Amino acid sequence: MIETDILIIGAGPTGLFAVFEAGLLKLKCHILDALPQAGGQLSELYPKKPIYDIPGFPEVLAGDLVNNLMEQIKQFEPGFTLGERAETIVKQEDGSFIVTSNEGTEFHAKVVAIAGGLGSFEPRKPLIDGIAFYENKGIKYFIKDPEEFRDKRVVIAGGGDSALDWSIFLTDVASEVTLIHRRNEFRGALDSVEKVQELKDSGKIRMITPAEVIGLNGAEHIESIVIEENGAQRTIPTDYFIPLFGLTPKLGPIGNWGLEIEKNAIKVNNSLDYQTNIPGIFAIGDVNTYPGKLKLILCGFHEATLMCQAAYQIINPGKRYVLKYTTVSGVDGFDGTRKEAPKAVVKAIV
Amino acid sequence: MIETDILIIGAGPTGLFAVFEAGLLKLKCHILDALPQAGGQLSELYPKKPIYDIPGFPEVLAGDLVNNLMEQIKQFEPGFTLGERAETIVKQEDGSFIVTSNEGTEFHAKVVAIAGGLGSFEPRKPLIDGIAFYENKGIKYFIKDPEEFRDKRVVIAGGGDSALDWSIFLTDVASEVTLIHRRNEFRGALDSVEKVQELKDSGKIRMITPAEVIGLNGAEHIESIVIEENGAQRTIPTDYFIPLFGLTPKLGPIGNWGLEIEKNAIKVNNSLDYQTNIPGIFAIGDVNTYPGKLKLILCGFHEATLMCQAAYQIINPGKRYVLKYTTVSGVDGFDGTRKEAPKAVVKAIV
Ligand SMILES: Cc1cc2nc3c(=O)[nH]c(=O)nc-3n(C[C@H](O)[C@H](O)[C@H](O)COP(=O)(O)OP(=O)(O)OC[C@H]3O[C@@H](n4cnc5c(N)ncnc54)[C@H](O)[C@@H]3O)c2cc1C
Ligand SMILES: Cc1cc2nc3c(=O)[nH]c(=O)nc-3n(C[C@H](O)[C@H](O)[C@H](O)COP(=O)(O)OP(=O)(O)OC[C@H]3O[C@@H](n4cnc5c(N)ncnc54)[C@H](O)[C@@H]3O)c2cc1C
Repeated sequence: MIETDILIIGAGPTGLFAVFEAGLLKLKCHILDALPQAGGQLSELYPKKPIYDIPGFPEVLAGDLVNNLMEQIKQFEPGFTLGERAETIVKQEDGSFIVTSNEGTEFHAKVVAIAGGLGSFEPRKPLIDGIAFYENKGIKYFIKDPEEFRDKRVVIAGGGDSALDWSIFLTDVASEVTLIHRRNEFRGALDSVEKVQELKDSGKIRMITPAEVIGLNGAEHIESIVIEENGAQRTIPTDYFIPLFGLTPKLGPIGNWGLEIEKNAIKVNNSLDYQTNIPGIFAIGDVNTYPGKLKLILCGFHEATLMCQAAYQIINPGKRYVLKYTTVSGVDGFDGTRKEAPKAVVKAIV
Repeated sequence: MIETDILIIGAGPTGLFAVFEAGLLKLKCHILDALPQAGGQLSELYPKKPIYDIPGFPEVLAGDLVNNLMEQIKQFEPGFTLGERAETIVKQEDGSFIVTSNEGTEFHAKVVAIAGGLGSFEPRKPLIDGIAFYENKGIKYFIKDPEEFRDKRVVIAGGGDSALDWSIFLTDVASEVTLIHRRNEFRGALDSVEKVQELKDSGKIRMITPAEVIGLNGAEHIESIVIEENGAQRTIPTDYFIPLFGLTPKLGPIGNWGLEIEKNAIKVNNSLDYQTNIPGIFAIGDVNTYPGKLKLILCGFHEATLMCQAAYQIINPGKRYVLKYTTVSGVDGFDGTRKEAPKAVVKAIV
């Protein structure tokens, strides 16, 4: 059982920044995310694209913004459980919550902040007979740890950025990389497409297009896949099959937690603290809705900040908190670090 | 008469960022501020101090944040009227507003956004007989354009950062710099204090401490000041006297505009768009209040963003606006510039 003050569901920009604001109030956070990495939509959907409307950044790459946020919160030592989805929640007698993930991990928290964005990102799975059997037996929809593929044969399927970029990356790791797509045309960043062309020409990536994977073989683990190419079928031996057909966000199990839902989002009390209809559960960022709601990163930052104030009251009942400016009071990390502005001196000039 | 879509009162971070969000909606802004420079509290009170709670910046100097915001909005070509205070507002028959400054400048806008922070910064004036007579005749409480002092004699009074930093700066501009303070001890950044000591030792700054300015002379313009030092009085000829005793923010005339005021701040409808009790007038940033309000920079950014959506509806009645992501749609400046993410290509790999 993981114990924490605030369990944050969702490691997007909103959830990450909540760790910072909670830390200023001396509250500990643990973050749970279904994706293998932090950053939410920014990391998963557009890490190399510029954002222009983050205040103070005339331009910032989504991936850099995530890195900056990770740097900003690291002193507050958030716990991370990545690659697991929040499934159930049970309110305890003392008002705290136990959340359980799809892998059975349990989290015990006084406050739960749902920063789930558009929902938990679920892979689009190809319709191949028996595919469910091979999940965790050679089928991967996400790449969590590329080292898993060291000196193995991998087949990647897909025609977008993820398929291109992982094919490039894995040429340095896997013993054999095959890329299969049902068209000759790929859609992605120009340099990724050109790099794959180059790796194909030099024999480092085997390309099979247009083609489709239609069957899977293997007793305990995938041993080969069957593809259809120009009407003919053939079998390709492989250790891993990685279909990268994109992700769709699904509100999923959170939709059954008894929270008021409107337009696929969680209704909150925006005139106060972004709390849901269940006291102690908050919803911040893209996942919530209220009159005038905008699904923007900068709005999530504000919502996270106000949420933390309310969480403080729940976790420290009766204790009064006086807002302190970071510039004036500095920032004390849980790791013992302290950041502070250089102090003014009082000094005679003679 | 200056015509604009949104008149923003206050050039602090909130007012500045409002220009950006308005620009995305193709609304033009004009900014009015009592101070001679943009940036509000950040520029006036702590330009060289780090802020730690701006999302995405583990640390940023207040002055740099202001510069970044100015850079971020410049493509939307905001108008600036600096060094003037908003005094009166009159609602027109068509629902628009005419705001008049203390210097008689008139602004005509469909929407007014008050981003006035803690209020208009007013200088603390020393109690010297006849000082009001010399305002604009050699007495300066702010330095707007240092070139005004080129080859002139200046006397600065004060013991804090402003007095130290302007004394240093003006040694390169004025023909003579005198710094007067009622103690020997100064309070400021260590390097400023040390620099002044150095400039004193090399004869570039004349220091008179402990001493106080008690009188002013001159027919049409200041010609000399009278100081008291060790119980004795003497007269010092000068062209300018610049008392830098700090600023106090005053809500001032805005307090009489018929807006609902609570705890020296303007009450707004936070559950929607930060509009005040007068339709068409919004209050954003430190100047507003609502349940749960936090006087933080990042909250002002959010409030400015939601305000602009409501302003759009007022300015374009009946027109529907669909939120577009800057990453996806790019940013079209009023100056003809366009910023956009590199497009994905669709390209065959053969
Ligand atoms: C192409 C594109 C361009 C964009 N451009 C801009 C822009 O220019 N400016 C802007 O402000 N916004 C932009 N956005 C929107 C922006 O990305 C979102 O507003 C932002 O990501 C919301 O952050 P969040 O933290 O609330 O949620 P998300 O970033 O969506 O993160 C939510 C996280 O929660 C996880 N999660 C959800 N449910 C569960 C569960 N049950 N268990 C475990 N984990 C779960 C998800 O896996 C996800 O990682 C853009 C979005 C896209 C797709
Ligand atoms: C020492 C210090 C440290 C701080 N540290 C932090 C921190 O770490 N993090 C944080 O988030 N916040 C911090 N703050 C608070 C932060 O500075 C404010 O929240 C922020 O400046 C508010 O921005 P604003 O744009 O709403 O108002 P302001 O910055 O106050 O700007 C308002 C502007 O409006 C002008 N104005 C007002 N009335 C009129 C009028 N009638 N006519 C013309 N102009 C007018 C004023 O002259 C002023 O320039 C700190 C403040 C101080 C003093």
